Amino acid sequence: MKELIEKMKKEAYIIDNRIIKVDHFINHMLDSELVFKMGKEFADNFEGVTKILTIETSGIAYALATSFHMDYAPVVFAKKARGSQSGKNVYQSKVFSYTKQIESMISVDKLFLTKEDKVLIIDDFLATGEATTGLIDVVKQSGAKLVGVGIVIEKGYENGGKRILEKGIKLHSLARIKEIQSGIMIFEEGEHNA
Amino acid sequence: MKELIEKMKKEAYIIDNRIIKVDHFINHMLDSELVFKMGKEFADNFEGVTKILTIETSGIAYALATSFHMDYAPVVFAKKARGSQSGKNVYQSKVFSYTKQIESMISVDKLFLTKEDKVLIIDDFLATGEATTGLIDVVKQSGAKLVGVGIVIEKGYENGGKRILEKGIKLHSLARIKEIQSGIMIFEEGEHNA
Repeated sequence: MKELIEKMKKEAYIIDNRIIKVDHFINHMLDSELVFKMGKEFADNFEGVTKILTIETSGIAYALATSFHMDYAPVVFAKKARGSQSGKNVYQSKVFSYTKQIESMISVDKLFLTKEDKVLIIDDFLATGEATTGLIDVVKQSGAKLVGVGIVIEKGYENGGKRILEKGIKLHSLARIKEIQSGIMIFEEGEHNA
Repeated sequence: MKELIEKMKKEAYIIDNRIIKVDHFINHMLDSELVFKMGKEFADNFEGVTKILTIETSGIAYALATSFHMDYAPVVFAKKARGSQSGKNVYQSKVFSYTKQIESMISVDKLFLTKEDKVLIIDDFLATGEATTGLIDVVKQSGAKLVGVGIVIEKGYENGGKRILEKGIKLHSLARIKEIQSGIMIFEEGEHNA
């Protein structure tokens, strides 16, 4: 998505050649107009969706904006809790965060995903793919059909995208960073599905 | 807001005469169409807003929907971390959660709220007012003008609303529960600003 990539080139800054700071329009403050344009882009790329699944916290805004452009398909957000927890009325999956170096359990109430659902997963970042894989696992447990995965920013060099595509899952990332060289982001030409 | 109150009367269920379960349209799954109607209601009740401030996780959807109806005013969400943390580049405030019985520190990057801002606080629940008071404190530290507070569901019997009104702050709650009697919610007639 050209507008997002241009904004990132101008405004994102890179720490230690590794961490991409986009706090001021993605993570901590939202550029709402851009958020809704991103939602439109996701909506235009997937069809027949009955539920949009994301994970707290930062995925919620993008999921809601996508829902707005998809006839208000309900948004379900997986809850995240540190360590293991048990619950027989929830689908659960373990997710390891390399950024925070902690393992979390994500969970979704069984009432909110059923085998009749056609699910679009939306999240803000895709790096190693831990969180997304956890969400895919939750969808699998529910018996729902997975329509695809929509990601705002994909760090291509951490290979999460590759792992998802290898499973035969449709992936649409709005900005794909191929690598970071001397603090400069190099973007992939085109998107996975372009 | 009539539509919300009707939905709560029909669909919310009460645990232990105390906990209001609205997971399936407010907390865990979102009724997106209703979320945008609520955003419109907030937008219609406050003027001159330059930033919308909320707190992760559940406030984000309502803040974004309000922003949609307020010319895309940027949404800032306070981050919540367990225990105390220090940071000289952030506004911070301690918040005690009676539900979870833990103290958290909420923080907002100083870059995202300045004394030029006119801030609308949006959150999903108002009970004792701990979280809202924390957000009000953050706005005060920034020197910004507080335009008011918009709340989806106010538990009137926990007096958080009263505390906010006593400070002379404009409060608009979409559904105000006066009390819970034998598992039935009794709603206030009208809203604070009706």
